[in-house]
Amino acid sequence: MSSASIVSIGNELLIGHTTDTNAAYICRRLLEIGIPVVSIYVAGDDTDQIVRALKRAAEDADIVIATGGLGPTDDDLTRQAFAQFLGVPLRTDSELLEKIRQFFTERKLQMPEKNAVQACVPSGANPLDNPIGTAPGILAEKEQKLLFALPGVPVEMKQMLENSVLPRLKHKQNGCFVVAKKVRCFGEGESAIAEKLGDLMNRRRNPLINSTVDSGIITLHIIAAEADKQKAQLMAQTDSDRLKSILGDFVFGVDDQTLPEVVGQELTRQKKTIAVAESCTGGLLAKFITDIPGASEYFTHGWITYSNKAKTEQLGVSSELLQKHGAVSEQAATALAVAAMQKARTDFAIAIIGIAGPSGATEQKPLGLVYISVSSYNSCQTRRFLFPYSRELVRLRAVLTALNMLRLKLRN
Amino acid sequence: MSSASIVSIGNELLIGHTTDTNAAYICRRLLEIGIPVVSIYVAGDDTDQIVRALKRAAEDADIVIATGGLGPTDDDLTRQAFAQFLGVPLRTDSELLEKIRQFFTERKLQMPEKNAVQACVPSGANPLDNPIGTAPGILAEKEQKLLFALPGVPVEMKQMLENSVLPRLKHKQNGCFVVAKKVRCFGEGESAIAEKLGDLMNRRRNPLINSTVDSGIITLHIIAAEADKQKAQLMAQTDSDRLKSILGDFVFGVDDQTLPEVVGQELTRQKKTIAVAESCTGGLLAKFITDIPGASEYFTHGWITYSNKAKTEQLGVSSELLQKHGAVSEQAATALAVAAMQKARTDFAIAIIGIAGPSGATEQKPLGLVYISVSSYNSCQTRRFLFPYSRELVRLRAVLTALNMLRLKLRN
Repeated sequence: MSSASIVSIGNELLIGHTTDTNAAYICRRLLEIGIPVVSIYVAGDDTDQIVRALKRAAEDADIVIATGGLGPTDDDLTRQAFAQFLGVPLRTDSELLEKIRQFFTERKLQMPEKNAVQACVPSGANPLDNPIGTAPGILAEKEQKLLFALPGVPVEMKQMLENSVLPRLKHKQNGCFVVAKKVRCFGEGESAIAEKLGDLMNRRRNPLINSTVDSGIITLHIIAAEADKQKAQLMAQTDSDRLKSILGDFVFGVDDQTLPEVVGQELTRQKKTIAVAESCTGGLLAKFITDIPGASEYFTHGWITYSNKAKTEQLGVSSELLQKHGAVSEQAATALAVAAMQKARTDFAIAIIGIAGPSGATEQKPLGLVYISVSSYNSCQTRRFLFPYSRELVRLRAVLTALNMLRLKLRN
Repeated sequence: MSSASIVSIGNELLIGHTTDTNAAYICRRLLEIGIPVVSIYVAGDDTDQIVRALKRAAEDADIVIATGGLGPTDDDLTRQAFAQFLGVPLRTDSELLEKIRQFFTERKLQMPEKNAVQACVPSGANPLDNPIGTAPGILAEKEQKLLFALPGVPVEMKQMLENSVLPRLKHKQNGCFVVAKKVRCFGEGESAIAEKLGDLMNRRRNPLINSTVDSGIITLHIIAAEADKQKAQLMAQTDSDRLKSILGDFVFGVDDQTLPEVVGQELTRQKKTIAVAESCTGGLLAKFITDIPGASEYFTHGWITYSNKAKTEQLGVSSELLQKHGAVSEQAATALAVAAMQKARTDFAIAIIGIAGPSGATEQKPLGLVYISVSSYNSCQTRRFLFPYSRELVRLRAVLTALNMLRLKLRN
């Protein structure tokens, strides 16, 4: 059975400037065609380090995919490391050089001389076309192992992976098929969910079920492995249905569905519209809603009433109310939600008010105190939450909780 | 000289569900106390895989930091792998068990039986306190190598790193001191910047200067290594100043400064205020502005005028104008910016209008077309951009470009 190992290259990964999102993306795409990734190595911009990582990766798996280090600057050493690992010299590919020159000409720019190095490939290896950037990739073979080098810029890496890598790997999916499905939950803790699932999470079970947590979202990963692809798919699907029936309303979606996506689909299906009024989340809720293509079907108006004056001027919340109960109060949240719904003439509105920190807390109103109000034509539900986290996480958790409240409301 | 290697544990990392943000964080914090990370390994939830990664990490460096796999569920195997790597059995620590029980009691919950396993530590190793979660860490020693296991939940990992790991490593910074500085630029391409810097980016130079790109932001990493700490700091500082003088207005900040932070500081310093009106970016600009603690000093009002009706109702943009020039037009962007500034009575306003895709494009108005308008009491600058990227990147690039326009305006 084929498997893959990833080598992510760049000092920026080892000094912690950049998070390695490329590796996660490649893992996902390979798994979708039945090739599991068994290890990931991160190496710095140093030929020896890269060669060592390539060696270890080739020990682990028969497909090695490296990303990064193909740029035009002197710290880009993947070409050299590939040549050294393969035991061959680098050669300049004149056709490639012409293409790179053309890339600049088309943009009415002169090619910086630095970019010429990008036309070098290890002798005997093949360049991989980069339709949107100047860094071509590399395809090489060594002792039956397939080695790819892709650019580190995510958008270029993704396009090359789709066009030049995945089509070459499809014939490799012999033996065992791996089918992965996810079931995504909100509103319950990880170990409480694990207890509900009991033996389903046994380590020797096939499908294997893992759980991960991220900002209150629990993802259950179902991984089925079988020689027969359809059987693997059926097993994963059966488990997915089973988890949904055990966990009920805690489940908001499957696979890569997000809360804004699920809520957006439901609003579209029910032909309903929504407006938002945000204080402490400062646009994050609207951002999540408009992340979804086609959000204009159901989202029309948003207000970011960050100051008290804005709450009064933009949505008519009386200054008496703000004075009496405070800007962070159940009353203010309710007033904002109702006003936003009326002013935008939508079916629903969500208001979020709170103390995201790090300053602004009092004894009565601690950091992380958030009021969320979801209003509709016949009801308005306002709830109080305490999210004892950092500013960033208070804001994120408040937005996810608000979307989940709307999801449950849309369900009834 | 001490160095570290990181082992990130979890199937979710190999199936691509989770991006490894923990490794990047640990790299940054270690570098700040002079300990470079030389390699990162990702292993799945499998005892053998974890043990193999621990072995390789211990070959590379004298400090090994593992994260993940300390949760209460059956797929959490880091405790077992540590015991196997150390060649010792696991024991239950009764004091730890009591603490975990207490964690639940304080929250008025019953401890799920699953959580009892978190009180196990390899014999001879020490538990590390987890003040905010139930997963204690592990500290072990083997053949002069220091080994740490931390939880995978980022907020718990960070706290344990600060409280229990970094204080133990401070005495390890003997030998060479590594000082890293960053200079951050916007508005020019990576290779054009590299050409401006010339020999400063030579690979054998100390400090070493690397560059990375992310959504149009070019970061130049200066890495100085010297036996004397002050000398290393001085070298890094000198280079930082030099880059700033060569690159001029392209430089918006240093180290971890972000565009919203720099713009916020300048607004605060000049005692100016700002409002925003967003269409295609749907709240992302306001979100970036309010990411910064204390943004309420300068940010008061925001409008998300996602529909044409909202543009007219919320900010009085005439339907004739929208009809004649279209909602995505220079005229509409200018009208929104001016109206937002007047309605909020701020010193500046930014409006963003565009076609983020994937649908909505026409022959005259292609995907990625964005108009950004920055208005002040005596001028209004509206610019047209074409960002040929995905919906997510069009939105991100539009927001960064808008903040950069405001930055340059604040400079004059």
